[in-house]
Amino acid sequence: MNAITQTDGLYIPTYDDVLEAHDRIKPYIHCTPILTSTFMNDLIGAELFFKCENFQKAGAFKVRGASNAVFGLSDDKIAKGVATHSSGNHALSLSYAAGRRGIPVTVVMPRTAPEAKKAAVRGYGGTVVECEPSTSSREAVFADVVAKSGADFVHPYNDPRVIAGQATCSREMLDELGELDAFIAPIGGGGMISGTCLTVSNTAPKTKIYAAEPKNADDAYRSFKAGHIIADDAPETVADGLKVPLKELTWHFVSDHVEDILVATEQEIIDAMYLTWQRMKIVMEPSSAVPLATIIKNKELFAGKRVGVIITGGNVDLKKLPWMQG
Amino acid sequence: MNAITQTDGLYIPTYDDVLEAHDRIKPYIHCTPILTSTFMNDLIGAELFFKCENFQKAGAFKVRGASNAVFGLSDDKIAKGVATHSSGNHALSLSYAAGRRGIPVTVVMPRTAPEAKKAAVRGYGGTVVECEPSTSSREAVFADVVAKSGADFVHPYNDPRVIAGQATCSREMLDELGELDAFIAPIGGGGMISGTCLTVSNTAPKTKIYAAEPKNADDAYRSFKAGHIIADDAPETVADGLKVPLKELTWHFVSDHVEDILVATEQEIIDAMYLTWQRMKIVMEPSSAVPLATIIKNKELFAGKRVGVIITGGNVDLKKLPWMQG
Repeated sequence: MNAITQTDGLYIPTYDDVLEAHDRIKPYIHCTPILTSTFMNDLIGAELFFKCENFQKAGAFKVRGASNAVFGLSDDKIAKGVATHSSGNHALSLSYAAGRRGIPVTVVMPRTAPEAKKAAVRGYGGTVVECEPSTSSREAVFADVVAKSGADFVHPYNDPRVIAGQATCSREMLDELGELDAFIAPIGGGGMISGTCLTVSNTAPKTKIYAAEPKNADDAYRSFKAGHIIADDAPETVADGLKVPLKELTWHFVSDHVEDILVATEQEIIDAMYLTWQRMKIVMEPSSAVPLATIIKNKELFAGKRVGVIITGGNVDLKKLPWMQG
Repeated sequence: MNAITQTDGLYIPTYDDVLEAHDRIKPYIHCTPILTSTFMNDLIGAELFFKCENFQKAGAFKVRGASNAVFGLSDDKIAKGVATHSSGNHALSLSYAAGRRGIPVTVVMPRTAPEAKKAAVRGYGGTVVECEPSTSSREAVFADVVAKSGADFVHPYNDPRVIAGQATCSREMLDELGELDAFIAPIGGGGMISGTCLTVSNTAPKTKIYAAEPKNADDAYRSFKAGHIIADDAPETVADGLKVPLKELTWHFVSDHVEDILVATEQEIIDAMYLTWQRMKIVMEPSSAVPLATIIKNKELFAGKRVGVIITGGNVDLKKLPWMQG
C-alpha cells in the first residue's frame, strides 16, 4: 500500500448509517456494560469509564461491524456468503455473524495461525482456507476464494459497513454516560477509532478523540504526523490486534477528527494489562491495555476529565500471558 | 471445635437485620453487576445469572459483612477499633471498611502468609500482627491483641452482623432478577450461604439453595449428611477460601435451609475456573469456580431452571494460575 490521501471512491458512511446499523445489529450483539474503578480514577485523577467489549459476542467489538455487513446483505447476495482474510477477532466475528444469519463464510488464514483460532472459526460454522504466511500468498489465495465463490468481501476495517457498525459502541457510551470530555481507543487499522469519530463528530463535537498505539507498531502515529498513510511491513508487538496499517477510509476519519495519537512501549502495555486484570478483575487482550498505558503516561491530558475508554476485546491465550514470559 | 448442634447463645440475625445492613453499607459497597453467558446457558441447558462479587470493593463479597460490622459499631466503641484473624478476603475487607470509617483495625496473620496480602491490609491502613502458622499460636496472639486493645472482634463468618451483611448479596439478585428457581454459592465457613438462607427463606421460600464445596475440603458436606458439625484440621484445596469449618451460627442456617451440598474435585474446579475466564472474560478466584464445577457435574438438577450463581471473589495471584502449574 502506497501513501494515499483520498478515499479512492469508497463510500464514506454517515451518522444515518450508524443509526441504521444499530437497529440492524441489536438482536445479535450485547449492549456491553461500562465499568468504573475507584483505584483507576485515583491513579489518574480523572473519571474513567471502561466500555467492556471484551464481554461482547465473539469476545470483541469487531462483531458490531461484521454483523452490520452480514445482516445488511440483500437477499440475492446471501447464497454466495461472505469472505475475509484475518487471523484475529474479525475472523471470529464474521463467522459468528454469518452463522447467526445462516450463510456461508470463508476465512483465509495463514497455516501458521493458532489452531485455537481456526477451531473457533469452524466452531461458528465457518470454513478456513489456509495460505502461506506472506502477503502475496494471502492475496492470491483470497482472490481465488472470491473468484470461485462470488462471496462478498468484508474487509476487517476498510469497509463503510464495518465502520458504521463499530460506531455503535461510542453511541452506546454517550447514550448511557451523557457528555464526555474525551474518548480513547486503540488504533491498528483504525476501524474502531473511525467509528468513534463518526459518532462523536456528529453528536458530541466538543469531545476529543485520542487513539492509542504500541510504540513498536506506530505507523498510525507516524502517518498522523506526516499527513499521509505510512504502512509498516511486519511490526512486532504484544498487542497483536494492532499490527495492521491504516487504509483510505480509516485515514479519512483519523486525519479529520483525531486529536492526537499516543504511544506506549511493550512494557507499559503489559503493566497496564496486568493492573487492569488485578484491579478490575476483567480478562482483556493486550491491545485493549494500550489506552490505559497511554493515559498513565499522559495524566495531565486527562486530569479532571470524564473519559470514555474502549476495552476492545478479551481473546487472549490464558496459558501464555505476557507477564509469565521471560 | 467439637460437634455442636446449637447456637450457644449467639444472636440469630433476622431479615430486618438484612434490610438495616443494606441501608447501612450501601455507600461503601458496589451493587455488583449480574452477567449472563449464552455459552454457559447452552452448556447446562439452564439460565444462569452470575453475580459478580469479584468486582466488589476489596475484591470479594466479604466487604458486605465487614462493612455492616464496622459501620454498625456504636460511637463509644470505635476508638478501640476492630480486630480479626484471617489471611484472606475477610482481612482485606475489614481493613477496607475500618479505613472508610477511620477507625483502627488489627489483623492477626501467620508470618507465612503471602507478603502481598499483608501489604494489602497495610495499604488500607490496617496493622498486621504476625503469629506462627498454628491454631494455638494464632489464638494466643489474637487473645493478646484483643486484651491489650479492647478491639471488637469481627469473626469472618460466625457473627450475626457478618451474616446479615452477606445476605444483602442475594437480596440484590432477587431485586434485579425477580423469581429464581435456585441459588448456588461456595461453602467454606458458611457466611455467604447463611446470608443467602436468611434472605431467601424470608422472601422467596420456594427457591432452593445449594452449597458447593471442594471434595478435598468437604467437611460441610459430611456435616450436612451427619447432622452435626465436623471440622477438619488442615484440608488442602486450590479453593483456599473454603478450607475453614462451619461454626454454630452458620450450621444453624445450613442445616435448616440448604437443599443439598454438592462437591467437585480439584481438576473440576480448575477446569470451571478456566472456562469462566475464557468464555466470560472475568478474573475470579478458584473458590468462585466451585459452584459452576458442581453445576456442570449435576446438570439434571438445574436443567430448565433460572439459577443465581454467586461469584464470590477475584483475589488471585495472576502470576500463579492453577492451570500454569504441573
